[in-house]
Amino acid sequence: MAFIAPSRRLRRTPFSDGVEAAGVKAYTVYNHMLLPTMFRSVEEDYHHLKEAVQVWDVAVERQVELRGPDAGRLMQMLTPRDLRGMLPGQCYYVPIVDETGGMLNDPVALKLAEDRWWISIADSDLLYWAKGIAYGYRLDVLVDEPDVSPLAVQGPRAEELMARVFGDAVRDVRFFRFGWFQFEGRDMVIARSGYSKQGGYEIYVEGGDIGMPLWNALMEAGRDLDVHAGCPNLIERIEGGLLSYGNDMTDDNTPHECGLGRFCDTHLAIGCIGRDALLRVAKEGPVQQIRAIDILGDPVPSCDRWWPVWSGKKRVGRVSSAAYSPDFKTNVGIGMVRLSHWDDGDEVQVETPAGMRDAIVREKFWI
Amino acid sequence: MAFIAPSRRLRRTPFSDGVEAAGVKAYTVYNHMLLPTMFRSVEEDYHHLKEAVQVWDVAVERQVELRGPDAGRLMQMLTPRDLRGMLPGQCYYVPIVDETGGMLNDPVALKLAEDRWWISIADSDLLYWAKGIAYGYRLDVLVDEPDVSPLAVQGPRAEELMARVFGDAVRDVRFFRFGWFQFEGRDMVIARSGYSKQGGYEIYVEGGDIGMPLWNALMEAGRDLDVHAGCPNLIERIEGGLLSYGNDMTDDNTPHECGLGRFCDTHLAIGCIGRDALLRVAKEGPVQQIRAIDILGDPVPSCDRWWPVWSGKKRVGRVSSAAYSPDFKTNVGIGMVRLSHWDDGDEVQVETPAGMRDAIVREKFWI
Repeated sequence: MAFIAPSRRLRRTPFSDGVEAAGVKAYTVYNHMLLPTMFRSVEEDYHHLKEAVQVWDVAVERQVELRGPDAGRLMQMLTPRDLRGMLPGQCYYVPIVDETGGMLNDPVALKLAEDRWWISIADSDLLYWAKGIAYGYRLDVLVDEPDVSPLAVQGPRAEELMARVFGDAVRDVRFFRFGWFQFEGRDMVIARSGYSKQGGYEIYVEGGDIGMPLWNALMEAGRDLDVHAGCPNLIERIEGGLLSYGNDMTDDNTPHECGLGRFCDTHLAIGCIGRDALLRVAKEGPVQQIRAIDILGDPVPSCDRWWPVWSGKKRVGRVSSAAYSPDFKTNVGIGMVRLSHWDDGDEVQVETPAGMRDAIVREKFWI
Repeated sequence: MAFIAPSRRLRRTPFSDGVEAAGVKAYTVYNHMLLPTMFRSVEEDYHHLKEAVQVWDVAVERQVELRGPDAGRLMQMLTPRDLRGMLPGQCYYVPIVDETGGMLNDPVALKLAEDRWWISIADSDLLYWAKGIAYGYRLDVLVDEPDVSPLAVQGPRAEELMARVFGDAVRDVRFFRFGWFQFEGRDMVIARSGYSKQGGYEIYVEGGDIGMPLWNALMEAGRDLDVHAGCPNLIERIEGGLLSYGNDMTDDNTPHECGLGRFCDTHLAIGCIGRDALLRVAKEGPVQQIRAIDILGDPVPSCDRWWPVWSGKKRVGRVSSAAYSPDFKTNVGIGMVRLSHWDDGDEVQVETPAGMRDAIVREKFWI
């Protein structure tokens, strides 16, 4: 593995000092910012995440803030999900598409108020798209990136740890809802959400200066819970079928191809960009779709490029994420498979750097 | 230094196999793609770049293609530089700004034809901004990222090497002009340009499949010229005052603050976004500006965050890039300095991780 060269352009986060002190071993770059990928080892981090509680620096989930009279209108233009019933205090996973229905991002939107939204983005400059649309349509809305950095607390002991720092009321926050809580006199949005299947919270930390005090308070309060610095775990997220923009999908793919059709109410999402294209896709159905893929045999190496999926001599898809799962004792994978081979149990071959492997298409992910 | 975690999201390039074979030691990430930053060592690469010739994988300079009847109109909307006199075959360095005059990117634009442009971008998803504007204004233009990957040939022996592979006609290409040349029957745009002050070319390689054959042909042909794989060199680019978007400027800065006022013809650039704001800035002048900064004393560590610049107890700027220069025997730096302290020879202090250092503001860069 090569080193990552430091520069200001790969932005540090309000929690970077804590991440470094905890012995981060590897990073990726996400929204022009450093995202830890490994502390002890990917496997050790994986087991610990499922047993204890971790604090994750996910400041890379930058926010695009929409504020003003046209904020709600712009938000609905960006996504085919119907937002009319959404209340302040709710989080929605919202596919964002361009005029042809191609995915530009797959963020979580938080409705703070009728005229104020945060879009917690995946790895692409959604700010530029939202600003361009707002400017082109002369909307009365302010679009920018506020000084907000999410910190996630994930794992089976997350609720206990959070209650110790923020009080018992945090236990009442329901899944994909958020509330306002205080830490050292500062208001923070806390949502029951996160990029794992182990349960937990995301704290939207406003103001970089309060980052390390909060990090330290969580570490302090969780000592007997075996709290540790962690990060989104490659194995666990594949087991749980959590998609990654740029890995598992790009702007070539529609939400329907990504298995996100259930988040599209394209008929009802009046004014959404890409509506014509997506109505057509919804009518015809996609010809390829995201699937769980069980790659048989020994552990595979890192998936740093698309691995072709074959059925004999016919190319029928690609694998975009893969890792060996200690719990399921197989290589768990995510891929895009053509409809001729996407049924549960379909047998295919995956061309990995370690050679051609037999594989099985699964309708459901592992957890 | 930490490792960089491999994933498909950090895209490989058509030249990655060559880069790896040449022993790349470190990467950065740029436009969601891997950019080598070091082969032998930053110092060795630096001396070699100034003496011989290097082949650089700069595929990260992704292209935003504008094609169609409104391509020229959109291009002029994006930049305050007056494009009316620009001819096909020319390259222009074009600041791209938002409606408040904040820098969104600082690319080189290539005019391929009256209705076709490539914008060779710095590290931000300019594609999203251009697509948003085109959609909002209902322009008759196609905006996308084509399969084009620049390969740079830089250094004093670049012309000789290029002539061996593309023929002597390549010697006649003037600075910031381009022509069409053939390699193995394939047309390629070749410009006299590049992110160094050592002279050379950028080859716009269309189609990933021809990447490694071209890489290998250049290495083969340049054996006796001591050709080596290289990359943009931190020391050399600071000496030459080549700015880096995300390091030395962000969307908070106007082109005038970045010393790019000479590329703004805001009065004449009719229709350009941000015109009102930039006319105001041009009238009043900026209150801070990019300067060369000579940081005295021993070599400084990597500049991975802004270093405050002080005049006594008053904060007067920041340093964003710095490295020890073997040729100039000082720490060369780039920073943004307030007008009270930006004159040639002004003495300031820079707060580095290695302690407070005396420094001198310079009007001119080193080369």
